[in-house]
Amino acid sequence: MHKKSLKKILKNIRDRKISLQQGIQLLKELPYVDLRFAKLDAHRALRRGFPEVIFAEGKTLEQIGQISGSILAREGILFITRADQKVFNYLKKTYPSLKYHPLARIIYNKKLDKRKKGGKILIVSAGTADLKVAEEARLTLEVMGCKVGVLYDVGVAGIHRLLDKIGILNKAAVIIVVAGMEGALASVVSGLVSKPVIAVPTSVGYGASFKGIAPLLTMLNSCSPGIGVVNIDNGFGAGYLASLIIGNRE
Amino acid sequence: MHKKSLKKILKNIRDRKISLQQGIQLLKELPYVDLRFAKLDAHRALRRGFPEVIFAEGKTLEQIGQISGSILAREGILFITRADQKVFNYLKKTYPSLKYHPLARIIYNKKLDKRKKGGKILIVSAGTADLKVAEEARLTLEVMGCKVGVLYDVGVAGIHRLLDKIGILNKAAVIIVVAGMEGALASVVSGLVSKPVIAVPTSVGYGASFKGIAPLLTMLNSCSPGIGVVNIDNGFGAGYLASLIIGNRE
Amino acid sequence: MHKKSLKKILKNIRDRKISLQQGIQLLKELPYVDLRFAKLDAHRALRRGFPEVIFAEGKTLEQIGQISGSILAREGILFITRADQKVFNYLKKTYPSLKYHPLARIIYNKKLDKRKKGGKILIVSAGTADLKVAEEARLTLEVMGCKVGVLYDVGVAGIHRLLDKIGILNKAAVIIVVAGMEGALASVVSGLVSKPVIAVPTSVGYGASFKGIAPLLTMLNSCSPGIGVVNIDNGFGAGYLASLIIGNRE
Amino acid sequence: MHKKSLKKILKNIRDRKISLQQGIQLLKELPYVDLRFAKLDAHRALRRGFPEVIFAEGKTLEQIGQISGSILAREGILFITRADQKVFNYLKKTYPSLKYHPLARIIYNKKLDKRKKGGKILIVSAGTADLKVAEEARLTLEVMGCKVGVLYDVGVAGIHRLLDKIGILNKAAVIIVVAGMEGALASVVSGLVSKPVIAVPTSVGYGASFKGIAPLLTMLNSCSPGIGVVNIDNGFGAGYLASLIIGNRE
Amino acid sequence: MHKKSLKKILKNIRDRKISLQQGIQLLKELPYVDLRFAKLDAHRALRRGFPEVIFAEGKTLEQIGQISGSILAREGILFITRADQKVFNYLKKTYPSLKYHPLARIIYNKKLDKRKKGGKILIVSAGTADLKVAEEARLTLEVMGCKVGVLYDVGVAGIHRLLDKIGILNKAAVIIVVAGMEGALASVVSGLVSKPVIAVPTSVGYGASFKGIAPLLTMLNSCSPGIGVVNIDNGFGAGYLASLIIGNRE
Amino acid sequence: MHKKSLKKILKNIRDRKISLQQGIQLLKELPYVDLRFAKLDAHRALRRGFPEVIFAEGKTLEQIGQISGSILAREGILFITRADQKVFNYLKKTYPSLKYHPLARIIYNKKLDKRKKGGKILIVSAGTADLKVAEEARLTLEVMGCKVGVLYDVGVAGIHRLLDKIGILNKAAVIIVVAGMEGALASVVSGLVSKPVIAVPTSVGYGASFKGIAPLLTMLNSCSPGIGVVNIDNGFGAGYLASLIIGNRE
Amino acid sequence: MHKKSLKKILKNIRDRKISLQQGIQLLKELPYVDLRFAKLDAHRALRRGFPEVIFAEGKTLEQIGQISGSILAREGILFITRADQKVFNYLKKTYPSLKYHPLARIIYNKKLDKRKKGGKILIVSAGTADLKVAEEARLTLEVMGCKVGVLYDVGVAGIHRLLDKIGILNKAAVIIVVAGMEGALASVVSGLVSKPVIAVPTSVGYGASFKGIAPLLTMLNSCSPGIGVVNIDNGFGAGYLASLIIGNRE
Amino acid sequence: MHKKSLKKILKNIRDRKISLQQGIQLLKELPYVDLRFAKLDAHRALRRGFPEVIFAEGKTLEQIGQISGSILAREGILFITRADQKVFNYLKKTYPSLKYHPLARIIYNKKLDKRKKGGKILIVSAGTADLKVAEEARLTLEVMGCKVGVLYDVGVAGIHRLLDKIGILNKAAVIIVVAGMEGALASVVSGLVSKPVIAVPTSVGYGASFKGIAPLLTMLNSCSPGIGVVNIDNGFGAGYLASLIIGNRE
Repeated sequence: MHKKSLKKILKNIRDRKISLQQGIQLLKELPYVDLRFAKLDAHRALRRGFPEVIFAEGKTLEQIGQISGSILAREGILFITRADQKVFNYLKKTYPSLKYHPLARIIYNKKLDKRKKGGKILIVSAGTADLKVAEEARLTLEVMGCKVGVLYDVGVAGIHRLLDKIGILNKAAVIIVVAGMEGALASVVSGLVSKPVIAVPTSVGYGASFKGIAPLLTMLNSCSPGIGVVNIDNGFGAGYLASLIIGNRE
Repeated sequence: MHKKSLKKILKNIRDRKISLQQGIQLLKELPYVDLRFAKLDAHRALRRGFPEVIFAEGKTLEQIGQISGSILAREGILFITRADQKVFNYLKKTYPSLKYHPLARIIYNKKLDKRKKGGKILIVSAGTADLKVAEEARLTLEVMGCKVGVLYDVGVAGIHRLLDKIGILNKAAVIIVVAGMEGALASVVSGLVSKPVIAVPTSVGYGASFKGIAPLLTMLNSCSPGIGVVNIDNGFGAGYLASLIIGNRE
Repeated sequence: MHKKSLKKILKNIRDRKISLQQGIQLLKELPYVDLRFAKLDAHRALRRGFPEVIFAEGKTLEQIGQISGSILAREGILFITRADQKVFNYLKKTYPSLKYHPLARIIYNKKLDKRKKGGKILIVSAGTADLKVAEEARLTLEVMGCKVGVLYDVGVAGIHRLLDKIGILNKAAVIIVVAGMEGALASVVSGLVSKPVIAVPTSVGYGASFKGIAPLLTMLNSCSPGIGVVNIDNGFGAGYLASLIIGNRE
Repeated sequence: MHKKSLKKILKNIRDRKISLQQGIQLLKELPYVDLRFAKLDAHRALRRGFPEVIFAEGKTLEQIGQISGSILAREGILFITRADQKVFNYLKKTYPSLKYHPLARIIYNKKLDKRKKGGKILIVSAGTADLKVAEEARLTLEVMGCKVGVLYDVGVAGIHRLLDKIGILNKAAVIIVVAGMEGALASVVSGLVSKPVIAVPTSVGYGASFKGIAPLLTMLNSCSPGIGVVNIDNGFGAGYLASLIIGNRE
Repeated sequence: MHKKSLKKILKNIRDRKISLQQGIQLLKELPYVDLRFAKLDAHRALRRGFPEVIFAEGKTLEQIGQISGSILAREGILFITRADQKVFNYLKKTYPSLKYHPLARIIYNKKLDKRKKGGKILIVSAGTADLKVAEEARLTLEVMGCKVGVLYDVGVAGIHRLLDKIGILNKAAVIIVVAGMEGALASVVSGLVSKPVIAVPTSVGYGASFKGIAPLLTMLNSCSPGIGVVNIDNGFGAGYLASLIIGNRE
Repeated sequence: MHKKSLKKILKNIRDRKISLQQGIQLLKELPYVDLRFAKLDAHRALRRGFPEVIFAEGKTLEQIGQISGSILAREGILFITRADQKVFNYLKKTYPSLKYHPLARIIYNKKLDKRKKGGKILIVSAGTADLKVAEEARLTLEVMGCKVGVLYDVGVAGIHRLLDKIGILNKAAVIIVVAGMEGALASVVSGLVSKPVIAVPTSVGYGASFKGIAPLLTMLNSCSPGIGVVNIDNGFGAGYLASLIIGNRE
Repeated sequence: MHKKSLKKILKNIRDRKISLQQGIQLLKELPYVDLRFAKLDAHRALRRGFPEVIFAEGKTLEQIGQISGSILAREGILFITRADQKVFNYLKKTYPSLKYHPLARIIYNKKLDKRKKGGKILIVSAGTADLKVAEEARLTLEVMGCKVGVLYDVGVAGIHRLLDKIGILNKAAVIIVVAGMEGALASVVSGLVSKPVIAVPTSVGYGASFKGIAPLLTMLNSCSPGIGVVNIDNGFGAGYLASLIIGNRE
Repeated sequence: MHKKSLKKILKNIRDRKISLQQGIQLLKELPYVDLRFAKLDAHRALRRGFPEVIFAEGKTLEQIGQISGSILAREGILFITRADQKVFNYLKKTYPSLKYHPLARIIYNKKLDKRKKGGKILIVSAGTADLKVAEEARLTLEVMGCKVGVLYDVGVAGIHRLLDKIGILNKAAVIIVVAGMEGALASVVSGLVSKPVIAVPTSVGYGASFKGIAPLLTMLNSCSPGIGVVNIDNGFGAGYLASLIIGNRE
């Protein structure tokens, strides 16, 4: 398309249907066309497994409704993070086929087909209170068509529970570790296997965890290399990164 | 080796050269042997591309010398990060074949053979002052046998330099982004391609960069998902994580 | 007025209606009169486009009511920031002509006439959740009689949307960039054009944005010079500063 | 120039000196050319008063030498910030015409001609210890061809010194306030005049100034609107922003 | 009382009613008695103008009720800070003569007689939103029998309002400055007069005031010496310190 | 059990019922068996006085219900911290014998028998507002069968109250100090006696206590050595540590 | 002087030597004259016991030399804080009568005569390492003519040393407490007496004192009211404030 | 001594050598005498195993020399922490029998006899760079007469090294864990055994360890209860606390 329109401009210049001046003016617009190409590329990215995603916090119901409608019409797939029940109830009226996962606070309309290639992603969490972040990661991956396994409640206070599962850790292609409090689980998991670890600090903990700063620093400073850290409570981001790592293998 | 010694114990039991009681006693030591297993596993990991690594800061010359000798004897490959010229001069006397990269502050004795499988890792850096961290990542990857490319000095102050290279970005399997000051480069790169991005904040900058806190926060909070963050100035950690991601593909 | 009263004192001295001693006594009060001058200057400032402004947070309804009455009587123009619906309902009873913009949380009674001179101010925002801060800036500028344009939802996660609009960026006299999360948009915009950029970090984001500290640091540390930063979520301050820059040109 | 080369391609197409196919191929390079545009624009920006600038900290002498050579050849004007005497001595050998301002830590080769249009920029500093930052701003502006005035050592501990100069403040088009310790000067200056104020916190002070955090926060939180803040000790950034504000008026 | 019991012991020894050994045993308890002395001293302190004070936050209604009863019985004067309406309603039932100042959040039963000696304490506040802290200081001083004056809403955004009142500032023996946002008022006031200034940062402000950290740092780093800082929003503490300064003069 | 199964494997090898290869394979599983041992050890730890503990915050009622049921069935003793009334009401329906301490926010079913050996633990608190943390420590110790004494409301504002009780301090085997505001009590207590002190900072205080950071830092920096610090408001952790210290003596 | 010139203007108006218009113009300049008054007041303040003070850090030798010369000529008294030996050696050449106190890092030329009125200021310090800050306060007070006493090395690790001296504490008019590490001494001293306490946190301590933040927070959060805090290591500021408090009594 | 003087006073009263009034006066001084008692108690504490300790940082050589002389004369045992070689060389001249441990930076004259009672203290460290802190703890304990064992270089990056030593962990009475970087070792060790753990964060690590804040927070937030934390790098404090725990058992 772009190539055609470019050709047409040049043809018109050659055929002197438009002046040089007009041609220069038209070509000045070319970057836009190039950038429209880029947008088409975004479409392609979507078809490869990554839906456009809405971050619900800080948006009004009306805003979420409008963006959702536009994405559904254009992409056919909707994925909303940090959505509370109110958002779901609001959207539900217009789009009755939407689903809601209250613990993960995710609204979505469907899961993509499981990918043929690429390994399994294992989500490891430290405690029950980290579950909502772990579930956000899990659902993100499932909607994106990734294979996911979970290993919950294996915090380092009872490290035997984890050591018992080294076999499972070793079978994963990528490991997401979700942990609050001191977040030591990421270091321990990373030290046990030669897999890339994505660490998600959570805001779970007593006072001096400072809403997740403590496990965040723990994970950034891990004495065991091979860990990439995402934002506090950002289960979605961890899932997304894991999906990119896996996705590259196809 | 371990397997051999295990076999030998069992053989001796089978052949009744040692009593059951003696066998149990010997096998009680198995956790050690198991741990030696673990160490053997470390050997395997090494052969797969990851040397045991010494972090030189905070260690005395004597300590580094002893650990280096032990690793060289056992592993045949030595890799030391955060080493200044003094450390190199000290080790050089005993191990004349060691090499030193002053900008990356790395001492090593050899590079592993280039891996057959797995894509190329692209290191993108924002400014000249980020080079030493970027070079630490590059040399880490080279020693580990990974294919590496670099794209230096493409900070967002002149974003055209980066946009011009989208083709190169798209060919990478993993992208490491090294940036100080505000660290915005990681977000921009991540938004342009569907590749996992490893972000390394550097301590380069004016006062309120707080020795790397500013780019660290920038990278953790990126509006573009798909970024895993490592510690400030931790080029080695970024290289190591990238190598794990690539390595899994073999 | 003040000038008149000053003239009157001097006239009375000249005409020997009051003694020198009495004149000195009266003029000793001049600092007050001088300060009234200063207040007159405030009037002038107002006429030039800047209303006196009330920051509603932390004030009781009664306090806001009294200050509003006094300002309306003296200035004829009222502008209140950070006002919730309750404040508006309270004031509305007494001053039925007041208007309220719930997203921007601004109460005002009228917009000044559009200035004849001075360029257009462009407000660029990263995401939908930044809208309330962006709208606070926009309404501030409109009430102050400035020409304003907006370019919303062009965050760096999809930088094409922004690059597509370089023409619009270049036509602005001043650009206000409103962004939360990592706030990288300010650096990118500043790097694209040679215009002064006013950056407003917002408190929108996941945990480690620390209610706006992350984008605040990003903006302060921008590798692209030419950015002045205002307080977190301070859309009003950004508008005010932009207006001062434009206003000086008249 | 670019326009010329674009014109030439189109002309050649029109004149059928090159085929449509060749034209498309050449124009495919346009993004590069566009980027060269951007670079040409940089040239223009330079001629308009803004040199390309090297931040010396964290760069080796060799790196600074190479970049300096490349910029001098391409731009004819060199401007280096945060340069110590050692850098100057190193460059001086190759480029004997370079000048060095030790207090401002700036190396430069010439000052641009004073701009015809645009007002004067006033630099106000609180104490003698803030001088090196203030001088960095002053020299930045002078090299960029701006008119500059200074008002040094008028900190709020003796506010009379400042009030005495309101006339001078009012004559400035833009005011840069440089202050360490508690940084209150920015608020006071901003409250006195209706001019845009650029505030530069400095790292001067006792313990709890935390190397500039205290004045940084003071300036961001000023009760007087109309202040844009730059990074700690960033005199260059303040000068650059002031120059952009003035520059737009031409 | 204590003196009496001490006398009695000694008398009994002298009169040989108790043995030396018994006397020593009894006097071993003297530290307790001494400590009761200390408590008597507390009584004296109270009579000199300082009531025992209850900090209501974090205490249950029942706890406050019990402590209040005990203090009222023992001291005859009750002073409770940080008390909301609920606390007052609860106490009111039992102690109908209690008074409540909702803005200052103080419950008290009476004001001490005005001191004969010692100067006046002036409370200066920056904005209307700082009033509740300023009023906490004022009421504290009034209950303690100090002479108090106030100068409210003279923030540095319009410094003329303050300069107009230098006469009033100079007449004060001690000045309490209450300010939020950037808190510059303390520096300016301190620079104008040779009086001890007690600075109270308030939590009033936009995002980067960080609930009072900004004015706290401003006040600690004041370039004008002669300022003592108390905790954020601690109007009571400021009043108490001022009272100690004045009180010493009697 | 483990020993038996090990013996059986070795016997089978000796008796050539299984091949060497099979034996090696089976022994490779041994670490799991070892780890199962470890779990048995955990059971033992419980019998020695430490129940498994549930941290209620961040868990749903259903989650707490399920975990409680499982622990009660397996261990016969239930201990839940940070539980509000809602949690208690929910559990109460199923487990009517549960008890609830609203101030300490602890749910439990029984207290272990008082230990025969080991000294008394003394809990010292600074103010009434610290009571809920102190009570959490006290109840933790009582449920664990420790002897506990309390010394409440002896903050350093009236140090006589504390000095009066040195005898009680000296009789304790371990002292837990609970203090908010500036937390100086821990230093003072530690300086008075030669006992290990466990310090618990609480989030009680004015603005600059930063929800417990102030007393936390105070306690970590105590000029009096011999203090171990636990997390802010972590009365449970303090009790647990004290119990371990005492418990080791049996 | 000012009065004279004012009189002259009015006279000239009366005598019709200047027009009303000219008179108004001249009087517009009056604030300056008023401000010159204020400067005369500064002189007076100096004569009352407070020298102008130079903060040496961040100033070049030349700058310090020039300012010193100007102050000595104008005021006859010189007082420089934070001066190292190099500064003294430099000034000594020109002003041989200067004295230097290396521990307090103060340069001065003479001490003012002891004040007749006003009580004694007691400086209490916690440890030997706090001495340089304590001595800075002491010398400041001595140069200002105040009566000073010291009570060094009475930290709370051995609180008996302090309790032993309550008599001395009670005789002071103002107490300056200098303490690093956890800074608890200020709370304890304040709780013992009814005197205003000026607290100076010092940067002495282990890691988590964060160069004085720990004692700073301790002092701000003291449970004992009546403490005013100055900046970290700011012995000069503490002395200055104490002198203002005493000075008011004359 | 005190008892004697007390007896004497009472005797004089009984024998009517002094009046009741005189007796009361003399006994008013008793608190001093009581406090002298307390000092005698300090002597006793010393004999029980705890020397008075000098913290060398921030003290001049002369100060250290004087304090050392006084302590040696009075106590016969000297223990100095944070002492560099220069301090040792200085003291060595006067006290040639002093010993110096350069890694632990401790100067001491002798080790107390090994205690008969009380268990062994085990010091566990994560990496070689943590050694100097671990050695400070070890030497502290040895000088105090405690039994000490060490387990160095068992960081969680290779957790097998630690698990292999559970037997050794279980034999300890108290475990000191010294770890930098992310400090996860404390949680893991605490989760493995039922022993009190004293955790010492060290300042070893990359940028975001913030000189020990990361491991400090990790240790405070440990999901495994039973950990008491001391200051960053405070090996001495950890040893001292461990000694108090052990010491109580005698």
